[in-house]
Amino acid sequence: MQLIIGNKNYSSWSMRPWVLMKGLGLPFEERQLRFDFAPGSAFYRALESVSPTHKVPVLVEDDGFAIWDSLAIIEYLAERFPEQPIWPRDARQRARARTLCAEMHGGFGQLRSHCPMNIDADLAVVGRRLLATEPGLQADLVRVVQLWTDALNASGGPFLFGEFGAVDAYFAPVVMRITRYGLPITDLTQAYAQRVEQAPGVSDWIREAMAEKDFLDFEEPYRDVSGPVPTLKR
Amino acid sequence: MQLIIGNKNYSSWSMRPWVLMKGLGLPFEERQLRFDFAPGSAFYRALESVSPTHKVPVLVEDDGFAIWDSLAIIEYLAERFPEQPIWPRDARQRARARTLCAEMHGGFGQLRSHCPMNIDADLAVVGRRLLATEPGLQADLVRVVQLWTDALNASGGPFLFGEFGAVDAYFAPVVMRITRYGLPITDLTQAYAQRVEQAPGVSDWIREAMAEKDFLDFEEPYRDVSGPVPTLKR
Ligand SMILES: N[C@@H](CCC(=O)N[C@@H](CS)C(=O)NCC(=O)O)C(=O)O
Ligand SMILES: N[C@@H](CCC(=O)N[C@@H](CS)C(=O)NCC(=O)O)C(=O)O
Repeated sequence: MQLIIGNKNYSSWSMRPWVLMKGLGLPFEERQLRFDFAPGSAFYRALESVSPTHKVPVLVEDDGFAIWDSLAIIEYLAERFPEQPIWPRDARQRARARTLCAEMHGGFGQLRSHCPMNIDADLAVVGRRLLATEPGLQADLVRVVQLWTDALNASGGPFLFGEFGAVDAYFAPVVMRITRYGLPITDLTQAYAQRVEQAPGVSDWIREAMAEKDFLDFEEPYRDVSGPVPTLKR
Repeated sequence: MQLIIGNKNYSSWSMRPWVLMKGLGLPFEERQLRFDFAPGSAFYRALESVSPTHKVPVLVEDDGFAIWDSLAIIEYLAERFPEQPIWPRDARQRARARTLCAEMHGGFGQLRSHCPMNIDADLAVVGRRLLATEPGLQADLVRVVQLWTDALNASGGPFLFGEFGAVDAYFAPVVMRITRYGLPITDLTQAYAQRVEQAPGVSDWIREAMAEKDFLDFEEPYRDVSGPVPTLKR
């Protein structure tokens, strides 16, 4: 089984199935494609035969069968590895978990557009400015905090539904955005965010993202160059 | 089991689980809320206790357990009514079906924003203009046609995976957009769109949407008033 992903520093959708598979110890081969959205690029050529949307992540079985969407990949893994705690065992907990993933999959547009994932960066200055000027971003952040709080209170933690599973993987890129843009959250959710950062799989991804050092200007609305104290474009 | 929905003429997300449940003959009570997105509106007050996102559709079990996202509702129905052909029986077909629903759930942003669902309207003039000026809309349409064509060729029809199921329900609002905005598609996909319009559940929804006659100005970027030959705002 092969998982095709993009740049670890930037590719929030790739991060989800990767940290889940790594965190649970599922066997897979990683194939990394460098982002390049120019027509005819190596990125698009590599995806030609496996993904009609030309997006990552893509899960490819050994015989070529491909799944080109992160949520569908997670459902497929849950069916293929039924002994793994990908979804909660209880039917209603599972329905709730799927609701939160679907909410993430189709929503949080302001958080996603204003604060693109950039693991290597410290953008707290930018985050503070954005929070003051973008009410939609504030609303998304309020909903994240509420969603995490409700789930943690219902399950008792340490992860959203107890053990680390699909929903935590789905929100791992949100954790990255909150920490990198320094967005303020509550103590309870802050502690959860820290546990996610330290979870197996997530901590591996973060380490490799930090080591990547592949600064892509079109993925950088804010930084001018990489580095600990970047100068800002705007 | 209760399904909370919005206006039938406008609410594309509500349409999905409703036409699936109706089409398969699943038992449910419909509760319709009139769209009104003003703070403190009856719409928001009714959703307060069942949906933290304050959006429709919401599926509510008799004891109050609620699911507030259309894709999670469909997964829940598939688990609760395993004898129903909601997802394909074959594991790989099922993975493919879930991929297409997830693609719809998180994508087709240009089609959704430029051509909001409006079943009662004839907006062919608007559709023609939009197609000429919006390359993103063109790209979404190309992908819809490709996606339907691939699925119909693989299954042999009459629906995307053979029998009417979750994926057809998920694309039913796209059928509405294509027909109402007169967007050009191929003969094969045109015939599929017609079968969807005539399918049990979908035809009921369309009839009730046409009878609704509840013109909401904030859902009408193009029409000035309702009626067969509307004057256009822009
Ligand atoms: N709904 C898709 C979204 C995937 C997505 O947007 N991937 C981005 C990178 S994180 C991409 O490949 N973009 C390439 C492009 O837009 O051409 C999923 O969940 O897998
Ligand atoms: N991802 C959600 C989207 C639901 C959604 O956007 N519903 C719209 C009506 S079609 C709504 O309730 N909007 C109210 C609002 O935005 O306040 C789902 O699939 O159920």
